[in-house]
Amino acid sequence: MQSDELLTRGVAKVIPQKLAVQKLKEGKKLRVYLGIDPTGAHLHIGHSVVLRKLQQFADADHDAIFLIGSFTAMMGDPTGKDLQREPLTFEQVRKNFELYKEQAGKILDFNKVKIMYNHEWLKPLGFDDVTKIASNFTVQQMEQRDMFEKRIEEDKPIGVHEFLYPLMVGYDSVHLDVDCEIGGTDQEFNMLVGRTLQKAYGKREKFVLTNKLIEGTDGRKMSKTYDNCIYLDDTPKDMYGKTLSIKDDLITTYMECCTDIPLKEITSVEKKMREGANPKEFKMRLARELVTMYHDEDAALQAEEEFSAVFAKGGIPEDMPEAKAKKGELLIDLLVREKIVASKSEARRLIDQNAVSIDGKIVTSHDFNFEGLTPEALAKGVVVKVGKRKFVKVIS
Amino acid sequence: MQSDELLTRGVAKVIPQKLAVQKLKEGKKLRVYLGIDPTGAHLHIGHSVVLRKLQQFADADHDAIFLIGSFTAMMGDPTGKDLQREPLTFEQVRKNFELYKEQAGKILDFNKVKIMYNHEWLKPLGFDDVTKIASNFTVQQMEQRDMFEKRIEEDKPIGVHEFLYPLMVGYDSVHLDVDCEIGGTDQEFNMLVGRTLQKAYGKREKFVLTNKLIEGTDGRKMSKTYDNCIYLDDTPKDMYGKTLSIKDDLITTYMECCTDIPLKEITSVEKKMREGANPKEFKMRLARELVTMYHDEDAALQAEEEFSAVFAKGGIPEDMPEAKAKKGELLIDLLVREKIVASKSEARRLIDQNAVSIDGKIVTSHDFNFEGLTPEALAKGVVVKVGKRKFVKVIS
Repeated sequence: MQSDELLTRGVAKVIPQKLAVQKLKEGKKLRVYLGIDPTGAHLHIGHSVVLRKLQQFADADHDAIFLIGSFTAMMGDPTGKDLQREPLTFEQVRKNFELYKEQAGKILDFNKVKIMYNHEWLKPLGFDDVTKIASNFTVQQMEQRDMFEKRIEEDKPIGVHEFLYPLMVGYDSVHLDVDCEIGGTDQEFNMLVGRTLQKAYGKREKFVLTNKLIEGTDGRKMSKTYDNCIYLDDTPKDMYGKTLSIKDDLITTYMECCTDIPLKEITSVEKKMREGANPKEFKMRLARELVTMYHDEDAALQAEEEFSAVFAKGGIPEDMPEAKAKKGELLIDLLVREKIVASKSEARRLIDQNAVSIDGKIVTSHDFNFEGLTPEALAKGVVVKVGKRKFVKVIS
Repeated sequence: MQSDELLTRGVAKVIPQKLAVQKLKEGKKLRVYLGIDPTGAHLHIGHSVVLRKLQQFADADHDAIFLIGSFTAMMGDPTGKDLQREPLTFEQVRKNFELYKEQAGKILDFNKVKIMYNHEWLKPLGFDDVTKIASNFTVQQMEQRDMFEKRIEEDKPIGVHEFLYPLMVGYDSVHLDVDCEIGGTDQEFNMLVGRTLQKAYGKREKFVLTNKLIEGTDGRKMSKTYDNCIYLDDTPKDMYGKTLSIKDDLITTYMECCTDIPLKEITSVEKKMREGANPKEFKMRLARELVTMYHDEDAALQAEEEFSAVFAKGGIPEDMPEAKAKKGELLIDLLVREKIVASKSEARRLIDQNAVSIDGKIVTSHDFNFEGLTPEALAKGVVVKVGKRKFVKVIS
């Protein structure tokens, strides 16, 4: 990446723009941080956008800090969530973080990026400190946050503690005394609270850099719930396959935010697609790039070859797991037993969506078993296809 | 006082009434507290109302706790005040409290009333505890507090920290696990926050008892600013004199809230005053009672005699301080020098209010000096009267 892309590539907003440009122009080492709360820990390429931005600052020779919300994660951002859920223990947070760090290490170079933990300065704060921090904001300012405004309009409750989380993460900025904070667009409010606090405590003036949010493969929010994530630790085959399945209009945003493909090339891809080119070749380019980044070039080529072969053979891969059907066993039970699906309800849902087939014929009943098939067919094995990319050969 | 007056005499509200009646009927020892923040420390009979109520519970053999806001006072209730003022140090609070305790001891019997300090349980609380406490309230609930509602309507800011003070004092209830909290009407909201928290933390159900607010001698809020306070450590003469100067419609409220004069007698005073009796004799009764309470009966009688004598002589007391006027000295400078007034501006204000006279003639100019008086008059001495009760004899 070019260092002149620091403030633009994959970036949603820079606040204030003028300050950021000036700070970079001065050529001094800037102190920049990204804070994350390790509440859960399976990183996908949605998470990669901010991690990559932090690494870009490190590569441009700035002081980059990867801040672990070891204190804040124990509570978690309560905003909009169930008020009474159990807080995480420090031990759980530590465990989550170890997993998080391992995965983030695929993007961050920890020789260049410093790790810090916010329990070091947040844990010693008392009720009096909290009061002092809170005195820098009015209730009316807090209520201007989009999400709060919406809830007030809808007459939905806002917990008083929801006003405290932004103060807590905002105080990180005071302690770290930074020039810049990086975060997702959903963190803009919290980061600006930190900017105000930093000024109030007589520290540096910080600018805030929010990154674009990238959607999941199906165009909805990237989330485990929707099963539309490309995980950083996906196998080359899965990563390649999932990338080929993304919606066409995501291609160039993924390229901009999740890879180092030159901007010039991305602009040209956009142009070609507008002119009607088949998006498949660009998806393949993107898929190769991602697999190369998170595995290597060989793995990328191998995945590509395999997928080409599958397509050549009408979409059925050469090697697939085999399973024996027990006498009278339902298809859905076999799929759960073989871990092709996570649960019976998932299997039923997929059947309802016509996404399960046997030797090309769509299965329509939840109660399907293998009794109706000829012994000859079963002796040879039948191919069960589940969703777009999962296969199992069932033999007698 | 009768113990059946616990929930009524001097009381503004009991919330919930039913719970309070039931708890008292059960006849168990109740745990009852009054919390005060020793921010400043010159107690007047306005303060005495809640202190007396606490002592009444102690006298009725309940566990009475006098809670010193040793932690909360360091910040002070920020509600509606300047956000950025300096917090008190622990040392200042301790000093204030020593003074406070000495004066409160005129009402509270510390053999029966236990003293506790809230820094013991509030100081160890961290950001995480504060968050947990705050999660029991919604922003909308907080905004229903009268004073906040008013400010929202008037588009005036509410500091986020103003939401935290009620949580802090509310948590006292959780720690103390009480049956009842006593406070002024201005504390109703805070005390109800404590009631909610106590329930949320699975403790006893507390009822809240607010006491009537009594006005200063001139009918305005009793406050140092207005110079309308009857202090617990006033001399018998001052206490007696100030009481005689109160507005007529305050007499019976003072009797109910600040003395043990039987309710039956108070009802009869009310009746007589409605029927047109001269209020002076009732004020004298009240003044005698107060001086007896805070000094003794002899002091009360002596003060009464002296005042009767003053009235007999057209309002000029027999003994008064003497001062020599320096050559060309302004009256206002002399008054400041002799500590009759606190400042030149107070002297000017009193002159503007026609409250300063010399031998019965009202002084109208700020620049008055004694040069215009005859040497004979000055040799004999002239009586300068300032306000209703201050006199100085000026001689040459």
